[in-house]
Amino acid sequence: MKISILTITPEFFQGFLNTTIVKRAIDKGRCEIEIIDIKSYAHGSFRHIDDSPFGGGRGMVMRCQPIYDALQEICDEGSHKILLSPKGTTYTQSKARELSGKKHIVLVCGHYEGVDARVEEWMDEQLSIGDYVLTGGELAAEVITDSIVRLLDGVLREGSATEESHENGLLEYPQYTQPREFNGQSVPEILLSGHKAKIEEWRLTQSLLLTRKHRPDMFEKYGLSDKEKKLLEKADKE
Amino acid sequence: MKISILTITPEFFQGFLNTTIVKRAIDKGRCEIEIIDIKSYAHGSFRHIDDSPFGGGRGMVMRCQPIYDALQEICDEGSHKILLSPKGTTYTQSKARELSGKKHIVLVCGHYEGVDARVEEWMDEQLSIGDYVLTGGELAAEVITDSIVRLLDGVLREGSATEESHENGLLEYPQYTQPREFNGQSVPEILLSGHKAKIEEWRLTQSLLLTRKHRPDMFEKYGLSDKEKKLLEKADKE
Repeated sequence: MKISILTITPEFFQGFLNTTIVKRAIDKGRCEIEIIDIKSYAHGSFRHIDDSPFGGGRGMVMRCQPIYDALQEICDEGSHKILLSPKGTTYTQSKARELSGKKHIVLVCGHYEGVDARVEEWMDEQLSIGDYVLTGGELAAEVITDSIVRLLDGVLREGSATEESHENGLLEYPQYTQPREFNGQSVPEILLSGHKAKIEEWRLTQSLLLTRKHRPDMFEKYGLSDKEKKLLEKADKE
Repeated sequence: MKISILTITPEFFQGFLNTTIVKRAIDKGRCEIEIIDIKSYAHGSFRHIDDSPFGGGRGMVMRCQPIYDALQEICDEGSHKILLSPKGTTYTQSKARELSGKKHIVLVCGHYEGVDARVEEWMDEQLSIGDYVLTGGELAAEVITDSIVRLLDGVLREGSATEESHENGLLEYPQYTQPREFNGQSVPEILLSGHKAKIEEWRLTQSLLLTRKHRPDMFEKYGLSDKEKKLLEKADKE
């Protein structure tokens, strides 16, 4: 697949393109990532990328023409165009799965003072990574790219992507590694037992308990199996 | 304020520290940002930063000792320690406001295959930036840093931070800039009228309509004033 990122700060992405998973996806030919400088499309009678808002108000608004020209050059019918905006739909793992099946994703990074609203009409969708205010869409573009790329075939070790928080609708169970004892804190005995079935049962119980406690909204949406109901009942008694 | 970021990939943050708002905050002396390489604390009998999980399973788990030693060195009683983890509470703008009042924030970047659960007990809280799976906590640390830094006094132009989506509980109204007509799309007449009060009314109405349509959850939490109720009724009739 190909991901094109339209930004006014292309230098922002240097470190990101060299991170393990993204670099592995690129090196393995699973993904091409193209960073496009919106500034290089700012021509015509207004050579700047932003201007004051019509109707007054503080700040500058990104002009539509440079974005339009960039889209004209890089998109075809198969391109899925996304504006990263605080007004967008909240991004989730199921959207990441959906996007990981696209051929070409175009991520347009807005900036905090706003993008000319006409740009919105050229988009397939608008996405927001959460209910907080960021300076620009660049971090959102990196979040979305990272979460998609790691779902592509052959990028992660097999199975790694399915055992994590949010993938099966539960938070992940607690993990422990060396040493067995650290500063008065020990690894739970069960994990040292070598009893595979019991360990699996303990982990599932911990996932259920953690999710119920910290994310009641996720827990409510999760359909408990009979086995899981019994595990929880047992844990509640203990 | 000071923000310390504990990471196994310090090089990831180079581009970020040079972005406009973060750089301005640092240059103005509003904020100090310290990037700490967890790897440099990996000593003792295990010189690596991760190891296989007790109890079996795929992947590697980040060891607690290097993180413990780093925390010991950089924290004092006033430090607010946050683990970035998919298991954390979902980050929002009100948390950004809360954190912007802290003296010292420590952001510990976990990695996707997990962090030894003993680390969680040393933290003041765990935060997640959204319900999606990321490779590591680094992007989350940047999101949190960016959203906090822009709330510090003197970093943004006055007033800029309060007119945006999520700040007043509503999505932002549409913005337009030059040219008035582009590719068959015109700027709404009202914005060219010069009638300040009517423009303000139009913008508020648009914010209300957008929020009700795209973010019913936000709209439900928002307490409508009598004036706002009337504006919506009028818009619904038109």
